[in-house]
Amino acid sequence: MRITALAGGVGGARFLRGLRAHLDAVSPESELTVIANTGDDISLYGLRVCPDIDTLLYTLGGGIDEEQGWGRAGETRRVQDELAAYGAVPQWFTLGDLDLSTHIVRSQWLAQGLTASEVTGRLATRWGLPEQRITLLPMTDVPVETHVVLDAEDGSQQAVHFQEWWVRLRAEVPASRFVVAGLDRAAAAPGVLEALRSADVIVLPPSNPVVSIGIILGVPGVRDALRGSQAPVVGVSPLISGRPVRGHADACLSAIGVESTAAAVAGLYADFLDGWLVDPADAGVRVRGVETAVHSEDLLMTDVDATARMAASLLALAERVRK
Amino acid sequence: MRITALAGGVGGARFLRGLRAHLDAVSPESELTVIANTGDDISLYGLRVCPDIDTLLYTLGGGIDEEQGWGRAGETRRVQDELAAYGAVPQWFTLGDLDLSTHIVRSQWLAQGLTASEVTGRLATRWGLPEQRITLLPMTDVPVETHVVLDAEDGSQQAVHFQEWWVRLRAEVPASRFVVAGLDRAAAAPGVLEALRSADVIVLPPSNPVVSIGIILGVPGVRDALRGSQAPVVGVSPLISGRPVRGHADACLSAIGVESTAAAVAGLYADFLDGWLVDPADAGVRVRGVETAVHSEDLLMTDVDATARMAASLLALAERVRK
Repeated sequence: MRITALAGGVGGARFLRGLRAHLDAVSPESELTVIANTGDDISLYGLRVCPDIDTLLYTLGGGIDEEQGWGRAGETRRVQDELAAYGAVPQWFTLGDLDLSTHIVRSQWLAQGLTASEVTGRLATRWGLPEQRITLLPMTDVPVETHVVLDAEDGSQQAVHFQEWWVRLRAEVPASRFVVAGLDRAAAAPGVLEALRSADVIVLPPSNPVVSIGIILGVPGVRDALRGSQAPVVGVSPLISGRPVRGHADACLSAIGVESTAAAVAGLYADFLDGWLVDPADAGVRVRGVETAVHSEDLLMTDVDATARMAASLLALAERVRK
Repeated sequence: MRITALAGGVGGARFLRGLRAHLDAVSPESELTVIANTGDDISLYGLRVCPDIDTLLYTLGGGIDEEQGWGRAGETRRVQDELAAYGAVPQWFTLGDLDLSTHIVRSQWLAQGLTASEVTGRLATRWGLPEQRITLLPMTDVPVETHVVLDAEDGSQQAVHFQEWWVRLRAEVPASRFVVAGLDRAAAAPGVLEALRSADVIVLPPSNPVVSIGIILGVPGVRDALRGSQAPVVGVSPLISGRPVRGHADACLSAIGVESTAAAVAGLYADFLDGWLVDPADAGVRVRGVETAVHSEDLLMTDVDATARMAASLLALAERVRK
């Protein structure tokens, strides 16, 4: 079986680790292709940082800080403390020492002329993804950056990088809208559209529907590939009883004028979504044209086993809705 | 008093720390300007590394690994071990975590359009050099790289970066000659020629005469400024009884066909040198046109006090030869 997933960072990575664990148990030959959001990418200290790809690498490769959900286990911050002593900015984005090596080597390889896809392939090799039959693809090789437009009290507007809004401002300042610099000229990376066209199942993990999945859907050709897919497209709600499992999906939905409910998120995908897995707390959810299934447990992804059971539910739903 | 020095890495830095200690005791208002060799500079992992400037910064700023003579005290190597795991090369040049921050911030600032001089000024501020009345200048803002031509057994020649010869090959493979890429179009950095012209004393620490002092002398205008100097030009022999105090000066001298003796090194500077301080073991040394003085102790720079006494000897010699 060939499964293709779109994914952001922490939520996507955790779900996919559970999915891979489920597949290893029932269908170890299955191939999993992950199309990662790169809209969160940012240059810090002259180094190229791809937060979602790194979280996917570390989570799927066994190097993640489990507590935090991002960054490396056993991390230290000696380099960044020194950068602070030199007055280098910004300091609101934490770059641990182990994590920094990823950004250094990525920047070096990009400067040598490798594409983002080629760099991601090399990084994935170090993290053992090929051995797990996981192919990790950036959504595009073109640098894309999500910016957030904020309304000041005096009526003026200011745009900040997504990471600044998300990390420094903790998404507490209401976003007026999101502008994705570079997305209009961003071709899908090699393999992305092919992975959608050749998939037996297409999966949307419980990633942020606006700034993760939503950005990937904006890459030219991706949404059309989903709409035209013969394979079932199934997703997991990132909201439980109207609250995000993690992160600030509610603040993002609010910015685009969409309710923070499992039904409203499915509505964002209604033109291509076949099945939608929700938490027992959202058992009453109905979305026109979409088969809704209620998972037998909550959708909290508390550990790999629980997440594997979620993935099993989702794949069972995919079989039910297969055309 | 205004003192201007040319300097390489470890030997130069140690001597200048002693000189500053001596000045602080007898003439604290004295200004010390250091013109640093940048021929050793190298790009590693896409980051710009300036080994001599960094050794000067760390030694004069109190952050040096005293045992080693280069790198930061209390250093670790977490990032580079990770770079190795990613297959990044080379691994023969050690970059500690604390040290890496210098290269990251330098590379960032250079990429932002700052000159090497401006970057060095910012780094020096963090290390407290201005408070010590030390101005650290790169010899040039133009990237310059010393390469070493090696003769293979089959008669062919191969050029390697100076650091590769020095660090990886430990200068054990005989050098045929040195080629300094970029030196012909390297203008002296802002302040360099002025610091030579306005100096009350010009000092050559016991740095490598070929690949440190020799490279600085090759920057257009520098040697002419020394030749035309009204101020005394005095130096400390980097050799004791024909052996370098540290490093591989003998291998470098051999490559340019010069004997490894205190007299032969002074001969390299004979067109501008006024005074030459030698070790008691070299008491018999005579160099035409150069006043030779024998220091009362050995020239080993075992600690700051001993080095300060060397500096005092050298400045006393400068007064004796003042025109």
